[in-house]
Amino acid sequence: MTRPASISGFPEWSPAQRMIEQQLLDRIRTSFESYGFAPLETRAVEPLDQLLRKGETSKEVYLLRRLQADGEDGGGDAGLGLHFDLTVPFARYLLENAGRLQFPFRRYQIQKSWRGERPQEGRYREFTQADIDVVDRDELPFHYDVEIPLVVIDALGSLPIPPIRLQVNNRKLCEGFYRGLDIGDPEAALRAVDKLDKIGPAKVAELLTGTAGASQAQAKACLALAEISAPDESFAEAVHALGVKDPLLDEGLAELVRVVEAGREHAPGVLVADLRIARGLDYYTGTVYETQLTGFERYGSVCSGGRYDNLATSGTDRFPGVGISIGVTRILGLLFGAGTLSISRPVPTCVLVALPDEDSRPACDRIAATLRRRGIPTEVAPSAAKYGRQIRFAQRRGIPYVWFPDGGEVRDIRSGEQATADPQTWQPPEADRYPTIS
Amino acid sequence: MTRPASISGFPEWSPAQRMIEQQLLDRIRTSFESYGFAPLETRAVEPLDQLLRKGETSKEVYLLRRLQADGEDGGGDAGLGLHFDLTVPFARYLLENAGRLQFPFRRYQIQKSWRGERPQEGRYREFTQADIDVVDRDELPFHYDVEIPLVVIDALGSLPIPPIRLQVNNRKLCEGFYRGLDIGDPEAALRAVDKLDKIGPAKVAELLTGTAGASQAQAKACLALAEISAPDESFAEAVHALGVKDPLLDEGLAELVRVVEAGREHAPGVLVADLRIARGLDYYTGTVYETQLTGFERYGSVCSGGRYDNLATSGTDRFPGVGISIGVTRILGLLFGAGTLSISRPVPTCVLVALPDEDSRPACDRIAATLRRRGIPTEVAPSAAKYGRQIRFAQRRGIPYVWFPDGGEVRDIRSGEQATADPQTWQPPEADRYPTIS
Repeated sequence: MTRPASISGFPEWSPAQRMIEQQLLDRIRTSFESYGFAPLETRAVEPLDQLLRKGETSKEVYLLRRLQADGEDGGGDAGLGLHFDLTVPFARYLLENAGRLQFPFRRYQIQKSWRGERPQEGRYREFTQADIDVVDRDELPFHYDVEIPLVVIDALGSLPIPPIRLQVNNRKLCEGFYRGLDIGDPEAALRAVDKLDKIGPAKVAELLTGTAGASQAQAKACLALAEISAPDESFAEAVHALGVKDPLLDEGLAELVRVVEAGREHAPGVLVADLRIARGLDYYTGTVYETQLTGFERYGSVCSGGRYDNLATSGTDRFPGVGISIGVTRILGLLFGAGTLSISRPVPTCVLVALPDEDSRPACDRIAATLRRRGIPTEVAPSAAKYGRQIRFAQRRGIPYVWFPDGGEVRDIRSGEQATADPQTWQPPEADRYPTIS
Repeated sequence: MTRPASISGFPEWSPAQRMIEQQLLDRIRTSFESYGFAPLETRAVEPLDQLLRKGETSKEVYLLRRLQADGEDGGGDAGLGLHFDLTVPFARYLLENAGRLQFPFRRYQIQKSWRGERPQEGRYREFTQADIDVVDRDELPFHYDVEIPLVVIDALGSLPIPPIRLQVNNRKLCEGFYRGLDIGDPEAALRAVDKLDKIGPAKVAELLTGTAGASQAQAKACLALAEISAPDESFAEAVHALGVKDPLLDEGLAELVRVVEAGREHAPGVLVADLRIARGLDYYTGTVYETQLTGFERYGSVCSGGRYDNLATSGTDRFPGVGISIGVTRILGLLFGAGTLSISRPVPTCVLVALPDEDSRPACDRIAATLRRRGIPTEVAPSAAKYGRQIRFAQRRGIPYVWFPDGGEVRDIRSGEQATADPQTWQPPEADRYPTIS
């Protein structure tokens, strides 16, 4: 075999990094479950027609084809592609299983997705996302728009990562504002403002006059709205001060005030109203969320979502929802790249049982089995080398304790402290039992 | 959207079933880590040339193609396919990262794989496997062949599934026996005997005489060897009684005796020597493992593996290994199909906080937040319906407790018992805190 190489956009963490990822995923899952979200895992593939419902992502889809498709099933799975997010599969799952689910349905989903886009820093072709959504039949109460960001604040707050800034806006507010201004194409205006971080205000103003039918004064008002940001309900006064009146604007303002008030009570300073947030995807119909990781703002949002009233519909069935998606691979990629996440050892092992000679292996295995039954990860030395070499074996892996079966002693190889111990009763300090992230 | 449908071979569990799967995976992971195996996750895709190294599986590979491949990168990922197991990606990972790993390297890997084969009961096109392997550089001591099945016995023994029967054989034993018999093509003989369960002894005898160059008497001896099975080292006497002599046979016998002895000490009656086990894949070079689930024997092995001395080699680098793979989706599919696995409720929620009126939602959210911080999964009622309807909401989901904020009381809705309680101190019985599998 020729020596293989990595594939751009398909990250592979080292075992130590994978341990960090697992601990983070465990904490996210615990947070989600503490709010009563039930787990779901959908298949990796969807029929192509489902995947193409969001037009702009169609060029990112990976198609599947069986290498040796036989004639009988017509080439097999020709119409299947890998999902590129977890929202489209979830909407499909809802329509397929609505009769078997209890509504409102709260589910979380932690899985990989795939996008064939050109890889760049902080973007991947294969990546893990952690999604929560609440969906109801026909109507979904607004209080779920308030709850969803609080779940994410708890989940991300439980992780050893930099502080987050969760930015919230409401499409009704923006659309109502554009209507109140009497702009020709409010949707085009929304798409133009969504590019503000990428292209800057001057070019957005050009787009607004060029594609959304706005006058210079209207474009200026749109940019003034987009500049409003506040960690409390004072943002509403700033909007009123722009002097635009519209019923939809009022509805969006009232909704956003409720989200911001709840966020301020739950975790002061984390959640902010930020009226430049629009989200490119056109299925959002109200509240929208984005999240910046402090120190990594220039890489964009690491956790996004919003309210979608029309994503899952079939005939007269309609399942409005609100949800948010944590970009786990994206966060890890940024933090691993910056070298700000490490773990106390790259193996789960807490104790290495030293091996005096190969004939003692069964006795050493029994000591190890006793420790394992008591929840202490343990392995036995690979060979009966000199003890110095066995200790170095442990050191290289960061294993904190070596057990010497001859005298029944255990040594903390960091401090050199050694004491007699019984495998039935000995306990490591809690901080040593499992690897810890720092 | 037209109502979507399931896709044959791509299972999707219900949220309740997914909760069961997660609890099983957690226990498997805890068992693996208690033996010091470190986690690894490889990308879903491999270059096609890696995937085709095992010729017989090539027709099962799913190829990837970007829907709108642009010219610049030559059609993109045309040479990529989804992995069909976790052993081939692991061998590739080893060669790519050998310089950064500590040997012997103990890793586990719990991931999905994909095979485009025709689906049938107990077989899937998308499935989760849980693999452990130990790999060393140049040489791997035999004691790892002894340890690997003990890890699996602990892992599967920790699950609420029927008892297993772990069948072990050794290719050296069989090949040595065929050589000692002086059969023309020992490898062809191995492949013939591997079909014993599928086609029966008469057809295997035909294959042995037809393709492996065996005489009638030699074929009879091969079948006599394959019939030997014992939960202890008595199998070795039965082999000796067949009167065949060969040094490789002796080596294989001595190895298998060590595995069987250790298995008998660790968990009497679970591990058996079964000399018909051969494993179809040709990369195994010594010990081979298969596992039957009691009551589901006719579906074949649910957990298989073996020793592979030559799978990961590149130039002068050689990484012999031994490993085993638990077919998680396969086990779950069989048990879900038989209806023998259930969970106490299909949501994590332990407490539903009732809502007297919509104005009380912030107060109810505070009660819920207090309970959550104390590790009690809690949700607040979706609307301020009559309490009878809120209680039925909890009942339909199997949520055991309803909290009434007005009087500060909590009711066990199964027994109807109700008592005053403080969210700062109230504890559910441990068995109610999380859903439990029965």
